[in-house]
Amino acid sequence: MSTDEFYREHCPVTGRLISPMTDSRYRGIPTFFRAPLARSLSECDIALIGVPFDGGVTNRPGARHGPREIRNMSSLMRTTHHVTKINPYAIRRVADVGDVTFSSVYDLEKVGAEIAEYFDCIARAGVIPLSAGGDHSITYPILKGLGRGEPVGLIHIDAHTDTWDAHKGSKFHHGGPFRLATEDGLIDPERTIQIGIRGAQNTEEGWNYSRDKGMRVIFMEEFTELGVPGVLGEIRRVVGDRPAYVSFDVDGLDPVYAPGTGTPEVGGITTIEALALLRGLRGMPLIGADVVEVAPPFDASGNTALVGATLMYELLCLLSESGEAQSQVGP
Amino acid sequence: MSTDEFYREHCPVTGRLISPMTDSRYRGIPTFFRAPLARSLSECDIALIGVPFDGGVTNRPGARHGPREIRNMSSLMRTTHHVTKINPYAIRRVADVGDVTFSSVYDLEKVGAEIAEYFDCIARAGVIPLSAGGDHSITYPILKGLGRGEPVGLIHIDAHTDTWDAHKGSKFHHGGPFRLATEDGLIDPERTIQIGIRGAQNTEEGWNYSRDKGMRVIFMEEFTELGVPGVLGEIRRVVGDRPAYVSFDVDGLDPVYAPGTGTPEVGGITTIEALALLRGLRGMPLIGADVVEVAPPFDASGNTALVGATLMYELLCLLSESGEAQSQVGP
Amino acid sequence: MSTDEFYREHCPVTGRLISPMTDSRYRGIPTFFRAPLARSLSECDIALIGVPFDGGVTNRPGARHGPREIRNMSSLMRTTHHVTKINPYAIRRVADVGDVTFSSVYDLEKVGAEIAEYFDCIARAGVIPLSAGGDHSITYPILKGLGRGEPVGLIHIDAHTDTWDAHKGSKFHHGGPFRLATEDGLIDPERTIQIGIRGAQNTEEGWNYSRDKGMRVIFMEEFTELGVPGVLGEIRRVVGDRPAYVSFDVDGLDPVYAPGTGTPEVGGITTIEALALLRGLRGMPLIGADVVEVAPPFDASGNTALVGATLMYELLCLLSESGEAQSQVGP
Amino acid sequence: MSTDEFYREHCPVTGRLISPMTDSRYRGIPTFFRAPLARSLSECDIALIGVPFDGGVTNRPGARHGPREIRNMSSLMRTTHHVTKINPYAIRRVADVGDVTFSSVYDLEKVGAEIAEYFDCIARAGVIPLSAGGDHSITYPILKGLGRGEPVGLIHIDAHTDTWDAHKGSKFHHGGPFRLATEDGLIDPERTIQIGIRGAQNTEEGWNYSRDKGMRVIFMEEFTELGVPGVLGEIRRVVGDRPAYVSFDVDGLDPVYAPGTGTPEVGGITTIEALALLRGLRGMPLIGADVVEVAPPFDASGNTALVGATLMYELLCLLSESGEAQSQVGP
Amino acid sequence: MSTDEFYREHCPVTGRLISPMTDSRYRGIPTFFRAPLARSLSECDIALIGVPFDGGVTNRPGARHGPREIRNMSSLMRTTHHVTKINPYAIRRVADVGDVTFSSVYDLEKVGAEIAEYFDCIARAGVIPLSAGGDHSITYPILKGLGRGEPVGLIHIDAHTDTWDAHKGSKFHHGGPFRLATEDGLIDPERTIQIGIRGAQNTEEGWNYSRDKGMRVIFMEEFTELGVPGVLGEIRRVVGDRPAYVSFDVDGLDPVYAPGTGTPEVGGITTIEALALLRGLRGMPLIGADVVEVAPPFDASGNTALVGATLMYELLCLLSESGEAQSQVGP
Amino acid sequence: MSTDEFYREHCPVTGRLISPMTDSRYRGIPTFFRAPLARSLSECDIALIGVPFDGGVTNRPGARHGPREIRNMSSLMRTTHHVTKINPYAIRRVADVGDVTFSSVYDLEKVGAEIAEYFDCIARAGVIPLSAGGDHSITYPILKGLGRGEPVGLIHIDAHTDTWDAHKGSKFHHGGPFRLATEDGLIDPERTIQIGIRGAQNTEEGWNYSRDKGMRVIFMEEFTELGVPGVLGEIRRVVGDRPAYVSFDVDGLDPVYAPGTGTPEVGGITTIEALALLRGLRGMPLIGADVVEVAPPFDASGNTALVGATLMYELLCLLSESGEAQSQVGP
Repeated sequence: MSTDEFYREHCPVTGRLISPMTDSRYRGIPTFFRAPLARSLSECDIALIGVPFDGGVTNRPGARHGPREIRNMSSLMRTTHHVTKINPYAIRRVADVGDVTFSSVYDLEKVGAEIAEYFDCIARAGVIPLSAGGDHSITYPILKGLGRGEPVGLIHIDAHTDTWDAHKGSKFHHGGPFRLATEDGLIDPERTIQIGIRGAQNTEEGWNYSRDKGMRVIFMEEFTELGVPGVLGEIRRVVGDRPAYVSFDVDGLDPVYAPGTGTPEVGGITTIEALALLRGLRGMPLIGADVVEVAPPFDASGNTALVGATLMYELLCLLSESGEAQSQVGP
Repeated sequence: MSTDEFYREHCPVTGRLISPMTDSRYRGIPTFFRAPLARSLSECDIALIGVPFDGGVTNRPGARHGPREIRNMSSLMRTTHHVTKINPYAIRRVADVGDVTFSSVYDLEKVGAEIAEYFDCIARAGVIPLSAGGDHSITYPILKGLGRGEPVGLIHIDAHTDTWDAHKGSKFHHGGPFRLATEDGLIDPERTIQIGIRGAQNTEEGWNYSRDKGMRVIFMEEFTELGVPGVLGEIRRVVGDRPAYVSFDVDGLDPVYAPGTGTPEVGGITTIEALALLRGLRGMPLIGADVVEVAPPFDASGNTALVGATLMYELLCLLSESGEAQSQVGP
Repeated sequence: MSTDEFYREHCPVTGRLISPMTDSRYRGIPTFFRAPLARSLSECDIALIGVPFDGGVTNRPGARHGPREIRNMSSLMRTTHHVTKINPYAIRRVADVGDVTFSSVYDLEKVGAEIAEYFDCIARAGVIPLSAGGDHSITYPILKGLGRGEPVGLIHIDAHTDTWDAHKGSKFHHGGPFRLATEDGLIDPERTIQIGIRGAQNTEEGWNYSRDKGMRVIFMEEFTELGVPGVLGEIRRVVGDRPAYVSFDVDGLDPVYAPGTGTPEVGGITTIEALALLRGLRGMPLIGADVVEVAPPFDASGNTALVGATLMYELLCLLSESGEAQSQVGP
Repeated sequence: MSTDEFYREHCPVTGRLISPMTDSRYRGIPTFFRAPLARSLSECDIALIGVPFDGGVTNRPGARHGPREIRNMSSLMRTTHHVTKINPYAIRRVADVGDVTFSSVYDLEKVGAEIAEYFDCIARAGVIPLSAGGDHSITYPILKGLGRGEPVGLIHIDAHTDTWDAHKGSKFHHGGPFRLATEDGLIDPERTIQIGIRGAQNTEEGWNYSRDKGMRVIFMEEFTELGVPGVLGEIRRVVGDRPAYVSFDVDGLDPVYAPGTGTPEVGGITTIEALALLRGLRGMPLIGADVVEVAPPFDASGNTALVGATLMYELLCLLSESGEAQSQVGP
Repeated sequence: MSTDEFYREHCPVTGRLISPMTDSRYRGIPTFFRAPLARSLSECDIALIGVPFDGGVTNRPGARHGPREIRNMSSLMRTTHHVTKINPYAIRRVADVGDVTFSSVYDLEKVGAEIAEYFDCIARAGVIPLSAGGDHSITYPILKGLGRGEPVGLIHIDAHTDTWDAHKGSKFHHGGPFRLATEDGLIDPERTIQIGIRGAQNTEEGWNYSRDKGMRVIFMEEFTELGVPGVLGEIRRVVGDRPAYVSFDVDGLDPVYAPGTGTPEVGGITTIEALALLRGLRGMPLIGADVVEVAPPFDASGNTALVGATLMYELLCLLSESGEAQSQVGP
Repeated sequence: MSTDEFYREHCPVTGRLISPMTDSRYRGIPTFFRAPLARSLSECDIALIGVPFDGGVTNRPGARHGPREIRNMSSLMRTTHHVTKINPYAIRRVADVGDVTFSSVYDLEKVGAEIAEYFDCIARAGVIPLSAGGDHSITYPILKGLGRGEPVGLIHIDAHTDTWDAHKGSKFHHGGPFRLATEDGLIDPERTIQIGIRGAQNTEEGWNYSRDKGMRVIFMEEFTELGVPGVLGEIRRVVGDRPAYVSFDVDGLDPVYAPGTGTPEVGGITTIEALALLRGLRGMPLIGADVVEVAPPFDASGNTALVGATLMYELLCLLSESGEAQSQVGP
């Protein structure tokens, strides 16, 4: 089947061939990027996944509604990148596989187990995952599901290090996924870089954990000094050329770009910088990525979801070229 | 295939059986009511259809975004009606067939022709259509597509009679569909009832047309006097027991219930009245229905789309029992 | 000059004759109802006036922006009333005379003096005023300006009696205009009716003042019991057939209809009731009217301004037929 | 200490005596009704309590922010009721005791245990609780904490019976509190009345549970038929004159009055009806009350919180006169 | 008549002289900048024009409401520029001439013809136009109307090159005006510069057209590299010192500055950069300018309209000094 | 009493020790930063003060609601600064002292007198004030109250110099506080720096006043050229090492960061710059500070209040270390 065939479908009513991805952008069912809905993993190289869970937040909830609004806004995205001229859909079969299903939603550990099982299926099928959260607590079980023995590198954009200990009775909240992932050997802290960190804290414990484990933490003030090229240099130095995962928490951005999030921190990254940062990762062997903490109830203008969709498109371009991927999935 | 099988699907990742319609309401792809996406008309008895076109408005545009937001809000609907105990999904195979596709969007006549052709396919397949607009200009080509020789009865809830003549150079605008439908013999004006009419006009021409052709026009003040039971009596008297179509323009409701619409008129029907009105149509031989003029850009609270979805659910219950339908589609 | 000529104008660019009031409703300069801007009072029979002042509020400000938003929304109004078939523009020359100008905005007394002087000019010209506030403090100086010796009757729709004494150092606030008007002999308390009163108070002083002076106060619970016909009976009984003024505070409506106001009180009049109430005043000798307390910053959906414009249109219909007026202004 | 002294305080800066409850309504710290913050339970007869928990929702979260926004809007309330002329603050010492504190927020059972313990303290002190949720899952532990052996009567306004069984792995969600309370003997199902029920369901299980246990369920359609007086008759008949608790879920109201809630159902109770209903309970021996499911992130206009505060004020008036209370707390 | 006289008017009620442009900013009829409404073109040197048409959009409509909201927000503008100290009103007679009137609104070609005719009148009167859209499709007929034989230079700020071919059956949509203008010889592609281009596309056709015709296209990434001074250098190099037109599509700005637009693209120009860019054009012989694609229904905060008004003020300062103009209009 | 004890309290219900400042951020009474409410000035070193007055605005009102919304958003702030590692609460006893109380709200002079008296008490107690406005007119009486003979230096961030003369009949409006403060010898114009000035004006009078009195005015364009380090150099050069006050008007920021304000001016300071600017003041002897012009009714996303709270936190860190303070208050 050609890629053209892959992305087209017949109208169930008229029988005419239609191309949802390039039709009027307000039209049709809002899958991610209006890509086809996969009926099986064997149909796709890159899976677009929603993880609608926000039970791990510490403040404002709402990210459970994130996948749906990002899907909705992702209709504004198109195919060929204006800088790199990459058309990810021409390189890979990209499909929306729907949302993770939960049998239990009130128990953080069970939720985590179901997410981990889901992403284990993804990994076993040799498919590259690009996920939309949900709060950041989902990234620990995602990494667990994807884990294949060797710790991976981590490129983490966020206002918070998310390496904090238990909070209000649980360690599975959205402020701790990378502590858990470090403790489980899922990520290599020395190949981990955390970018955009800022905002006062009630203790320095999480900051210290990241530093003590050897993570490279770029606080916002250093980000401003280094500029995007300097930060990119640090990313490549720290992460190297072995497999890595990208986790983008939209609260790494300044709240004017991403007001719809649970724990906004004034004074963050701009979208111009974020896009340049992601484009600068081209060529790195990425095994997957996520965009988390889009909370539509706090997103009056819809810009957060639009930004989330745009970040996902940039990540999709990266993943479509990823060397690691090329060894696993066929064209 | 049992109805259970019809509404379930296997997760493409884990292979587990999932029931989208009864899962968490923020989860999954927002088809109408989270019903299955049909691959062919032969799979369904009732087709849920989006008609994302608002090129026929005379004032505020935005109804092109209606189908998507109604789909989104329709996830809040569930299966068994609390008054009638009807579960439409157990009686009929109900599926989302997606949106009408347009090759031309800037030419009202061509758009109309494509809508008409689409609904002709629906009718030919013996499937009952339940549509979400789009502006009210879509109802004329819908009726044209469904037309099978004999004029049908019309139950029309609206603030405006929509029987006005050409406006700004075209007669295919959203203020004229029922004049065109009368002229084409698609509806029988003497079996037509228009409910909720109000608001000043610059000429009395449309009001006069309705009256002169024999339509029963219930202005809002008469609605208040008659009450819902009285109006229902008039509907049954006028429309009788021959096939009829229901067209619900949300501006028939007071703008506090439906602020997201193009031409709001203060002082309209409440949702309690509207729901009671629709429930009162039970047993009438309906051949299809639409809900139009939901304009999400003017719907800050989302209530208009929620109301639109609720009206569609009520209409779905009616259509699922429709006698006319039962003679055409199998269980 | 015919009324047609009065309401048409030549496009300053093409020279073509245009009819702003009946053109596309999003088009053109938003005067009230898109009526002509008067260059002099001698050009008009009924003056549409903005009084953009909210320095008299006790809680949420914003009504200074009321005239502009009501003007904006009034473009949705049209000419011929759907119940009465009155076209006020065919009976009277109706023009927008702009806003009252203030040389001082921080001194309640000076503001009042300038409003009074303005309305004195209106009255001297024999023109009937229909005003948009502004907070309710403006009605006292309006009545002062219009006053011609004999106290007038008052039909007052509001959640509050507005007969309270000095507040925070001034008696010219928006909770006291009708106490001041009573004390000055501008209104006749025994020909005054206050409708829709409700909401807890910190003292009963204002309620007592109204009662003690002989005003007829219809609290919301009595309103519900009497119904609109009963209330209309009371209005006619109390006000009689001598000249009266209508003052409509939008907080008399339930806040779902008019969220954009300074002191909302849950549990008020519906717009259906309000419109029926105003229509029921037909034939009474009204000398002017106002709609006050539309505060756009609290009106996310814009419905309050739309309701304000609709109420003004109903009042315009009444004023266009007013007997008192007919003796003063020529056709 | 006189009530005057109870409600006044000295400005910590100037030393002047101030009266927060009757000062400008935008001023000062937003406690409930701007009542004093209690330092100990012995200071108050009626405790105003926030229960900021929404971990039990099945759909849209956000009610954790409810207590804060209701507090904020409650500044618009004043002291003396316009119908009953009750001033609850003159009868009882009413104080804000702050919010329930949680050591664990991710475990529904532990949260429930902490709420129950908190309300046990309230009951032991002989103080009457008036609470603001939070989602409806809080009412089960509230009743548990207040429970003193004998099951109480329940007046429950809601769109849902909230007597459903386990959902997604837990029975402590917001759709089940009254099933749990029945099973624990906290409420007497035969002295329980549920008012305003409506909306489709995926199974009839909860409706059946209520009916089978002998609860009186007034679906919305019966509500419309009975009218408020009829419903009040049923309440008194069912609940009788023994102690009862009132639980008001704002989704019992139509979503135009209360858009800010997690599971809105179109076609509900109006605020006029709700206020009349509550006023009609005067004289019943109420042991406490709550208003739940105000979810500010979905409340663009703020009306839901304003309605929530107004309902709490009505309940406060009722509780201030409650016979049961009079035997427990001194003036 | 002095400029002072030009901008003042007599209150039609009191007869007092008023200065709308310098009075309280919430007061009065919202013409552009509260400038006088012209009765004829001979009264003005610079015409402020609304072109309320959005029938050419490919995605979200709403720009038809742009002129009105820009007018509304333009009241916040004042007279003397804080950097250049230009007071355009002291140099030129600046007047609002209202909106273009359409006899047909559903036919893109007829709309274009009416716009072209309108701007032909402007040009024939020797008046400089400063227009507010409307969608970008209006710029082609504007250029057609202004065209006087020789192609003009074009300074075009936008996220899109707007040189795309036919879309959905028409070439007169908002993505193609500069292809049409090139083909008609209205603009000189070699004197055309397009600034801020970005966002994925489904084909590279439009980008290629611009390049192949010799337009200078500054994609956003080059914009960041060059900085404003570098871009200004390119503008002057490309456009030279012959007559040019400025067309500013607000989607050239990042969507945080201009969320209210039809086709937002994340990662755009800041307003600081945009203002510096426009100021840098001082001294160039500009024949007119427009600001397009302000779509108020998507502009919850109103910032897009405020930015649109600010851009228009900057353009007004430029036009007031334009050499080309000085040869045509008298002081 | 240790600082730990100072910031903890006992739950009035359970008696348990609670730590409001570090508990869940949606919980509890929203004092500034959830700091304790002071019962007397002797309890605190730094007083957090609300000044809810906006009677001095010239355009959009609403800043009277500022203190409440800033308090609400300030719950998102935490204790230890991520750059400086300062924990102001460990250095000083920081308490919320509530809002200034007004006996008169309609008379600008009396309001000013009450503010001045209030801040005189603050100064006499040796407490450092950090205030939230209110409009900018409050800063003149604040400075008057704090004044101790010698004029202080002023670091003033704003879009406007606020040195304008009388407006609409009063000189006590929000555009004039620093002219009044200069005339009264409260500030030293030669030790005054005004940063971020921009936006057209109707006269140059205010700009000239600042310049003529010797103030250092950094217009926005110079700000861009100098960058934050350059501006900081100028601040230190101008203000020197003698006591100074900081006044931050949020309209100094670009309106995308602070849309909720009365007189927004496009093209302002970013929050990253503002935070860096404030941090750069470390070590200067500050006697107090304010953040003004947060107008919640215009702040749909809540970002303005969040930014206001963040600025206050930065100022709190500065004030906690202020040398001037250390000589006055004990640890």
